[in-house]
Amino acid sequence: MDIFTAIESRRSCREFAAEPVDAAKIERILEAAAWAPSPLNTQPWKFIVITAQEKKDEIFAEAERCKAWAIEQSGWKWLHSYGLDFLKQAPVVVAVVGDPQKTGVDMFQTEGNVGYKLACAAAIQNMLLAAQALDLGSVWFTFFDRGELRKILDIPTDKTPISLVCIGTPAQAPAAVPRKPVEKLTTYID
Amino acid sequence: MDIFTAIESRRSCREFAAEPVDAAKIERILEAAAWAPSPLNTQPWKFIVITAQEKKDEIFAEAERCKAWAIEQSGWKWLHSYGLDFLKQAPVVVAVVGDPQKTGVDMFQTEGNVGYKLACAAAIQNMLLAAQALDLGSVWFTFFDRGELRKILDIPTDKTPISLVCIGTPAQAPAAVPRKPVEKLTTYID
Repeated sequence: MDIFTAIESRRSCREFAAEPVDAAKIERILEAAAWAPSPLNTQPWKFIVITAQEKKDEIFAEAERCKAWAIEQSGWKWLHSYGLDFLKQAPVVVAVVGDPQKTGVDMFQTEGNVGYKLACAAAIQNMLLAAQALDLGSVWFTFFDRGELRKILDIPTDKTPISLVCIGTPAQAPAAVPRKPVEKLTTYID
Repeated sequence: MDIFTAIESRRSCREFAAEPVDAAKIERILEAAAWAPSPLNTQPWKFIVITAQEKKDEIFAEAERCKAWAIEQSGWKWLHSYGLDFLKQAPVVVAVVGDPQKTGVDMFQTEGNVGYKLACAAAIQNMLLAAQALDLGSVWFTFFDRGELRKILDIPTDKTPISLVCIGTPAQAPAAVPRKPVEKLTTYID
C-alpha cells in the first residue's frame, strides 16, 4: 500500500470481528515498529502481545475503573457513552513498553526522559500504518493507570507502559474523522 | 512508495545539499502529519516552517550551548564529536509545537498530559515517512531547552515545543543503523 494512502486512510477502529489475526501479520507489524527512529538508536521499546482472553478482560475491567474515575474528575458526562469493549473484543492487544533509561541526552534535563516516549509513539504510528496496509483495523489507547497495568502485565517498575494497541479485522469500516486544514496550523519564518 | 519500504528505508539524515525544498513538498509532508491520530481527535499540533537562515543559526547556537551543557552533566566525551551543523544546513527546519490542553482524559492523571506529546510524535513519524517517499532526507531532533526555543521561535508559554524536524535533499545516502531482532523484544501472553 502506498505510504500516503496508508497515512490518510488509517482510522481508529473500535469494533472488531472475532476472527484471529495471523501471527505473521503481527510479526510484520512489530518489525515495522522496530524501524522507528529513537534517541541515539536506543530502541527503547518492548512489546507484549496479548491474545489470552482473561488478560484482555482484566485490562478492560481496569479501563472501566479508570473511566469511572475520569468521569468523576472531569465532569465530562459524554464519557459515559465512550465504550471500551474493544479492549476485550480485539483479537490482539499489544502493550508497548518503554525504557526511561533509553532516552538519549534529555535524561539530564529537568523536563527529561521524554525522548523514549516520543520514540515509542513513532513505533506505534508505524504499527498502525502497517496494520492498515495489512487490511487490519487498529486503535491506539493510552488511558490507564500505569501502576495497575504494570501489575496486570507483569511489567517491572523501572519500565513504563506507554500505550495499548488493539488490532484485528474491522467489524465495519470505521468512520472518517475530519482534520483541520494544514494552512491554519502552520506559520512560516522565511 | 510502499509503506513498508518507506518505514524500512527511512534513515536519519544529517548532511543536506544546499538546494531548497519545493514548498509543495513541505505542504504534502505537513498534510501527512495532520493525519496522525490524537486523543479525542484534538489534533494538538502546530507547525513552524523555518527557512530563514538567521533563525536556523540561532537554533544551531542554542543547540551548541545545550550540547556543551550536556557534556558537562553527562561526562559523555563522545558527545564532542556529535555534529549539529545539520540544524543550520538543512534547507527547512520544522518546529512541531504541542498544546498540553489537547491531551484527552490523561490531563486529570498525576502523570498526565502525555497524550498530546505521543500524538505529536505520531505526526512527526508521518512527516519522516512522507519525506522519505518524496526523496527527501530528514532528522528528528529533540535536544533543546524548551524555554530558549520558545524565545527564538516566539512560542507562547502555554504551548510546548516538542521537536525539530530538519528536511532537505540528502548530501549523501545516510548509513543504515542496525535494529534488534523483534523476537528479542517481544513477549506473548496467549
